[in-house]
Amino acid sequence: MSQFTELKREAYEANVALPKHGLINLTFGNASVVDRARAVFAIKPSGVDYAALTPNDMVVVDLEGRTVEGALRPSSDTPTHRKLFLAFGSIGGVVHTHSSHATAFAQAGLPIPIFGTTHADYFNGEVPVTRKMTAAEIAGAYEWETGNVIVERFAAIDPADFPGVLVNRHAPFAWGPSVAKAVETAVAMECIADMALMSLTLAPKLGPIEPELLAKHFRRKHGAGAYYGQTR
Amino acid sequence: MSQFTELKREAYEANVALPKHGLINLTFGNASVVDRARAVFAIKPSGVDYAALTPNDMVVVDLEGRTVEGALRPSSDTPTHRKLFLAFGSIGGVVHTHSSHATAFAQAGLPIPIFGTTHADYFNGEVPVTRKMTAAEIAGAYEWETGNVIVERFAAIDPADFPGVLVNRHAPFAWGPSVAKAVETAVAMECIADMALMSLTLAPKLGPIEPELLAKHFRRKHGAGAYYGQTR
Amino acid sequence: MSQFTELKREAYEANVALPKHGLINLTFGNASVVDRARAVFAIKPSGVDYAALTPNDMVVVDLEGRTVEGALRPSSDTPTHRKLFLAFGSIGGVVHTHSSHATAFAQAGLPIPIFGTTHADYFNGEVPVTRKMTAAEIAGAYEWETGNVIVERFAAIDPADFPGVLVNRHAPFAWGPSVAKAVETAVAMECIADMALMSLTLAPKLGPIEPELLAKHFRRKHGAGAYYGQTR
Amino acid sequence: MSQFTELKREAYEANVALPKHGLINLTFGNASVVDRARAVFAIKPSGVDYAALTPNDMVVVDLEGRTVEGALRPSSDTPTHRKLFLAFGSIGGVVHTHSSHATAFAQAGLPIPIFGTTHADYFNGEVPVTRKMTAAEIAGAYEWETGNVIVERFAAIDPADFPGVLVNRHAPFAWGPSVAKAVETAVAMECIADMALMSLTLAPKLGPIEPELLAKHFRRKHGAGAYYGQTR
Repeated sequence: MSQFTELKREAYEANVALPKHGLINLTFGNASVVDRARAVFAIKPSGVDYAALTPNDMVVVDLEGRTVEGALRPSSDTPTHRKLFLAFGSIGGVVHTHSSHATAFAQAGLPIPIFGTTHADYFNGEVPVTRKMTAAEIAGAYEWETGNVIVERFAAIDPADFPGVLVNRHAPFAWGPSVAKAVETAVAMECIADMALMSLTLAPKLGPIEPELLAKHFRRKHGAGAYYGQTR
Repeated sequence: MSQFTELKREAYEANVALPKHGLINLTFGNASVVDRARAVFAIKPSGVDYAALTPNDMVVVDLEGRTVEGALRPSSDTPTHRKLFLAFGSIGGVVHTHSSHATAFAQAGLPIPIFGTTHADYFNGEVPVTRKMTAAEIAGAYEWETGNVIVERFAAIDPADFPGVLVNRHAPFAWGPSVAKAVETAVAMECIADMALMSLTLAPKLGPIEPELLAKHFRRKHGAGAYYGQTR
Repeated sequence: MSQFTELKREAYEANVALPKHGLINLTFGNASVVDRARAVFAIKPSGVDYAALTPNDMVVVDLEGRTVEGALRPSSDTPTHRKLFLAFGSIGGVVHTHSSHATAFAQAGLPIPIFGTTHADYFNGEVPVTRKMTAAEIAGAYEWETGNVIVERFAAIDPADFPGVLVNRHAPFAWGPSVAKAVETAVAMECIADMALMSLTLAPKLGPIEPELLAKHFRRKHGAGAYYGQTR
Repeated sequence: MSQFTELKREAYEANVALPKHGLINLTFGNASVVDRARAVFAIKPSGVDYAALTPNDMVVVDLEGRTVEGALRPSSDTPTHRKLFLAFGSIGGVVHTHSSHATAFAQAGLPIPIFGTTHADYFNGEVPVTRKMTAAEIAGAYEWETGNVIVERFAAIDPADFPGVLVNRHAPFAWGPSVAKAVETAVAMECIADMALMSLTLAPKLGPIEPELLAKHFRRKHGAGAYYGQTR
């Protein structure tokens, strides 16, 4: 029996949760979970149908990018996940989807503006968007460079305060202390993108929520003073 | 056996109805039901997944805000529900959702305009929106103050004629003689918000329906002359 | 055993098809089927939940408006159905929904413009909309007058060429040789309203399809030269 | 036992996949699969409900347009499929839907602009739209002429690089090396049309993605350098 059984099961659960939440069409997306002690992560294989996926199909890759266990080729986005695990030391899981409303903002190169408390429950401000990638970055190690532009965007902000990003022209990535929390954030991003688009349709010049309300809601769920939910 | 078994069952049924009607993503929302004779209400625990919820998880809180029964922490929105039960003496249940179309109006700080008879079957005019909360209100007893701005908005209107509200920058609340009726109103609010947004897209300057038509439809379903449905 | 068992079963099947096709929220809608030989029609009872409905709940009403069989009160929209059966001698069934996209057009008082062949497969032109009702009509026999404004709108057009209508400020009605065909048309109306709204968003000045294309598609499915489907 | 059992089963699987993916309402759509060696294709019968369909209902038609096997009348769109199989020698299957977002672009006579990598994973540029058909084409062999305007649109582009098209005023067609791949492309077309419409709402003047990013994503999945998925 594999020493990675539990890690692969956790990655599997997160991956199959994505189409169940309506975040995935076809095979557009993937989730991964890291084991920091062993410096490996488990990720979905490339281009396999969600309906056919089993826990044992998950591919275990080390933080140097070498496949450690698994018969299938890992997701083509593996280098992006790896970059994020290396750069954001506190995260435990990464989720990538092409969920339609969040992707609509990404395609337009626009952040998701913060218009309400649903958004503030998850992000400490607007959902950031990366700069466009250069021709050289695209022609080079494209998926690794995708991770780089994400990390560059977070130079001055904390990935715990902003647990997701829109990759310009591409789609959203989300992360969190666990991959289950990253899935939840991916669901929330899609939902707030949907509502933001409708709020903009109703009020094209709508400004962001007031800083006090943002702080109140974000702090209800995050940090020392949090009082939402049952455990912390 | 608890003396609140029936009350908790009723609250449970209402809470699990919310995701079934597509009004809830993740754990965004809650329903409560009051027992006026005992001056208590049963409400969803905070941040618990709907799929995992059982009737016995419901928390019974008295109208002073003290937990009377239940092992879990009640919803963080409990003070808002309590305020509404205290201020609106005729209501039996309260429902809070972040249903996407109604929330889009709330985020924009706009009432839901009354464009058709579907709306008039439920509300005696546009769905009202609260004023924005002040920094002091947000920093203070936030959820209780949320109840206060709702009650303030209803100073001159009857909560039986307008069985719901949009909290500015936040999301909808609905209520009714029973929590089942409050759930129905929450479904209707989402539906009329969806249709209003589309009607506005088609006709940006569209005005409200004619007062005679509003009165006719609202009175078909409400008050002494009602003739819709089987019982009264 | 009732002499109307088959008629009630047919009405029941049509009514429960409505929420299954996503055309109905809550209890907004009803379907009826006429027996011309006996001059009666079967219709949904008023305000009964679709999940609880049984064939035996259907109410049989004669073309004079008297309940002939059934323990429950018939739909409040019964006089509208009755008016349509009296005025349109060739129709066998009537369906009323508040399906969201078609209702958005009705609320705006706008016909559904004919932008493509999907529409032309069902309607021989734009989906008509009635004039607004007068205060006197609303205060009078409202549901009967609703039928009247529909019939007035069809003074110069054939209900076989236009098997549905938008009631201004209200919602769509559809009809057909059978109630099953009326359900199909109600599904099509919602679908073409959805697509028309999106086409208008893409091209606000979009004109109707060319008359040749309209005629070709409508005639593929209707009349002597029809060649779509298996039977005629 | 029929010599076309396998061919009909494959056509059947593709046809029933269409409503399962939400691409089809009622009977709007059809899928076909060609057997090049025998110069025949299997296609859905005309106007049959998807729920009632069986593999044996599929109609086998030869590339001259004669029915070879099957008790039912083939889809009225059969001549369009036949034209595509004749003109595009490398394709194995064709799918036609009226999926709502793609059809909204078709009705507006607009190509689906290429705004992101989801699109670039499937198409090597915008999704093309045909010119409008002339009155003579419509009055003549309409469905065959529909195939002709598609083929005309592809005079200078490769159907392998652009595995689908919008027929002006009508709806999308997709194709691929297998009918299963054509179904996948039809799902992708609907999804990218949905996201493109939203991106346009957010940024009405949005331009296409950069050529390097388009080439990178299209080539990740197509051609000699492809590295997405498990097999090639």
